[in-house]
Formats: sequence, C-alpha cells, structure tokens
Amino acid sequence: MDDPVLLTGAGGRVGQAILAGIGPDYDWRLLDREPLSEDELPHGVASDDVVVADVTDEEAVRGAVEGVGAVIHLAGDPRPNAPWDSVLRNNIDGTHALFEAAVDVGVRKVAFASSNHAVGAYETDDRTPGMYRRDDDYRLDGTELPRPSNLYGVSKAAGETLGRYYHDHDGLSVVCVRIGNLTKSHPPKEYERGQAMWLSHRDCAHLFDRCLRAEYGYEIVYGISDNDRKYYSLARAREVLGYDPQDNSAEYTFEGEPRGGNDLED
Amino acid sequence: MDDPVLLTGAGGRVGQAILAGIGPDYDWRLLDREPLSEDELPHGVASDDVVVADVTDEEAVRGAVEGVGAVIHLAGDPRPNAPWDSVLRNNIDGTHALFEAAVDVGVRKVAFASSNHAVGAYETDDRTPGMYRRDDDYRLDGTELPRPSNLYGVSKAAGETLGRYYHDHDGLSVVCVRIGNLTKSHPPKEYERGQAMWLSHRDCAHLFDRCLRAEYGYEIVYGISDNDRKYYSLARAREVLGYDPQDNSAEYTFEGEPRGGNDLED
Repeated sequence: MDDPVLLTGAGGRVGQAILAGIGPDYDWRLLDREPLSEDELPHGVASDDVVVADVTDEEAVRGAVEGVGAVIHLAGDPRPNAPWDSVLRNNIDGTHALFEAAVDVGVRKVAFASSNHAVGAYETDDRTPGMYRRDDDYRLDGTELPRPSNLYGVSKAAGETLGRYYHDHDGLSVVCVRIGNLTKSHPPKEYERGQAMWLSHRDCAHLFDRCLRAEYGYEIVYGISDNDRKYYSLARAREVLGYDPQDNSAEYTFEGEPRGGNDLED
Repeated sequence: MDDPVLLTGAGGRVGQAILAGIGPDYDWRLLDREPLSEDELPHGVASDDVVVADVTDEEAVRGAVEGVGAVIHLAGDPRPNAPWDSVLRNNIDGTHALFEAAVDVGVRKVAFASSNHAVGAYETDDRTPGMYRRDDDYRLDGTELPRPSNLYGVSKAAGETLGRYYHDHDGLSVVCVRIGNLTKSHPPKEYERGQAMWLSHRDCAHLFDRCLRAEYGYEIVYGISDNDRKYYSLARAREVLGYDPQDNSAEYTFEGEPRGGNDLED
C-alpha cells in the first residue's frame, strides 16, 4: 500500500502493538487524543506529525483522513465498564464521524476495532466455563447477532453496523475485528476466558497487516491467536484476510491448572 | 395485563394505529413530544394525563415508566432520511434512556419499534424487484445481521442491540418489531416494495397486542401483514407471539399491475 495509513487511537494498547510489529512497513498518519511520546512513535514519524484530536471532532477527523488510502480505527473509550455517555460520544458518534469523513474523501478501506464484548453475553452461565476449554466445540463465527456484555459492547456492535452501512451505501471496504484479550508477553494466567481469547502482540500486528493488504467487501472477524481453548472461529479471518496466527495460549504453562472465572477483563 | 402500559410516541402513525385498534383494552399511559389532541386519545385518557416530554429527558422518562408493567416504545425520529445527529439523540440515546429507566423501576416487558430500514440493504440491485414478487422465495427471518439502508436504520439496529443487552443483563423481556409499510385503508398502489411489506392498521394493533400479552425472552420479529409478496418471514411472530394477521396486500386490486420501484418510503 503506497498511500499513507491513518491509525486512530495510536497511543492505545492495540495501536502500540500494531506499530511495534508493522511500524516500518507503512507510511503512517497517527491520531490520538493525547500527544504521543517518542517511544510511542514508529521510526520516521515525528511527534509534530501526530494529529492530536478527539475522534468526535469532525473537522480534525476530516483533515486526518485526507489523502490516506486506508484507516485502522481504534480510537474510542476502551473501558468495558465505560458509562453510556462516553461510549455514545466516543465510540458511536466518533466512529460515525470517522466513516463519514472516510467515504467523503474517498478512502478505500477501514479496519474497525470491534471487541469480544460485542458478543460477551453468549457466555451464559450454562456454557461457562466449559466453552473456555479445549474439549468444547462451541464456536462463534461472526455471523451471529451481537449479544453485548456491557454498554461498551453495545457501542462496538453499533460501530459494526455503521461499517455495514458505509459498505453497502458507499462501497467502502470494511473489516470489523472483534479483538480478544491482547496481552504482551504471555497469556493471562489463571483466567481461562482470557486464555481462550488471547491475542498475542505479534498476531495482532499481523492481523491488522492483513486487514490493510487483503481485498474484501464487508467482514466481521475474530481477532485472537490460534488458542486451543478458543470459542471464536478463525475460519473467516484465515479465508478472507489470509490471517495466519503463530501463537497459542496453550503453549504457555503455568503452575497448576488455570483457575477459571468469568471476569470481564478485556 | 392489569398494570398500565406506557406508549411512547403515542401521537405518531404507529401509535395511533395501535390506539385505534386496542385503545379500550388497556390502561394507557401516553408519552409524546407534543401535546395530543382529543382525537388522538383513547377513551378514558385525558389530555392532561399525557406526559409531554422528549424521550431523551431521562427524568421525564423515569417518571413515565414508574408503575407500568410494559412499554411500547415508538418514540424517535421516524424519518428514513433523518440526519445522524437526530437519530443519535432521539433514537439511540432516547432508546437507551427508555430501557435504562424500565429496568430501574422493574418494568417486565418492552416492545421496541424497529424498522424495515434496519435491513433495507438486503434489497440489492441483484435481488430487486424479484424479491418483491410472490413467486420469489427469498426471506429474511430476523436472525440475519442488520444491513441498514440509511442512518435511521442504523439507529434502529442499535436499539435492537440495546434491547438484547437489557434482556441479557437485566432479564427484561424485549421484542423488536421491524415494522414494514404501515398505511391505513389499503396498501400502497404502484409500489411493489410497499405491498411486499405492507402492514395494515388492524394487523398492527393486533401485533402489538400480542407483544403485550405473549411471554418471551428476546425476539426480533417482522411486522407486516400476510402479504403474498412478502420477503420477511412471519414464522417467529406467529410462533412466539401468536400473531395471526388478517390482511394481505394481494387482496387489493388496482388498475393494471403495480409498476414497482424501490423508493425508500416508509
């Protein structure tokens, strides 16, 4: 991809994992609500080149998308327990502003950071903790209706629907990545759910690289590593994006069996 | 149902169809942004008893749900071409306010007016106008992901997801009715799509009566008459709600064959 790529929410956890992995491969334009430190910038990007703006600031967003070929849209309130007013504004209204500006200036492709919380309520008392274990074959595959576990998840599902609209209405290529549990060096210990939906930094960067390079219309995929414990299907991500994850939470052994639990940690 | 029923958006087209059909059968509490005239009120309800408030006014909504057993939530901007700011506020934020107040005071059941526009983009150029005709067996059944035809449809899909959340999280019974093309005396002439998704006033009132009386968890159903031309399945509405529509747009003959078209009239 020759055109610059806009990364919104560049200073967040997902943004930093992406930049650490594929920073050198693209001509980035970064947007964040806060200025980024030198540490947070990929080589070749100066602090002054970062657009410091709220994603609900339509004018700033319009300026940021001007001339880019693709967008990775991560900006928003990332807290699973974020209050409604914040997700309404930052996640729903902000994602609308991003899509609207993108189609307006002719961006071709947007990868939208959705979340496991958009479907967290499929994890019913009846299914858990069994569904977090390798011998369980329950799978979500991205064709299911949202069942959010919180209002943050509602906002992510709304972002997915906005993407569907801008694909159908304006021909924008949109992939929604329902991101699992991103942690840096190893999967969460003693947290079965987190191991089931673990996403390593390396797989995260590779997945968003594929989102930028592959051709698609509208897709919802799951963003996790190839964990034995998974209950999210990777079929669609493999097939459409060419996602080829290298990590598996089962390769990490901890003292004793993980104790399980169903906390709503991200 | 002995407890009062709150009807929001009571002065609108759907609200008036409901009140005309089943007005005498319930103890209504009405909410509308505008005062209602005597003509718009069911027998036994005084103009002064109508809550005149915006559905985004959390305090007013909380007062309106106090003591009711069920809610029919129709309030919102009903225009398919409504601008984003209006549907964000009136339809998404307003529906959140309604659900939040409902679970807070212990309402048991909410029927939410969704719309055909939440799935309007399934009507692709390839499928139309064939899908509007009786010899076509394409059906949407409510298990499909939203594909809104406009931002109004995006807002209705978001309302459905909010309903899913409040069902899963708080045990509220929620039915989302994707309302078709409601017209009073006869189906739209010369408009195949409108005939396919026609909803007569009598079937509309009966459908919402069933929404109030039936027992369910979370449902998405289509709200249309039993039209030969339909591309929305009525199976779920019949099965779960006991919906038994009496009308069919095919029973109305107009001069010549309807000419078709795919306008986005409601």
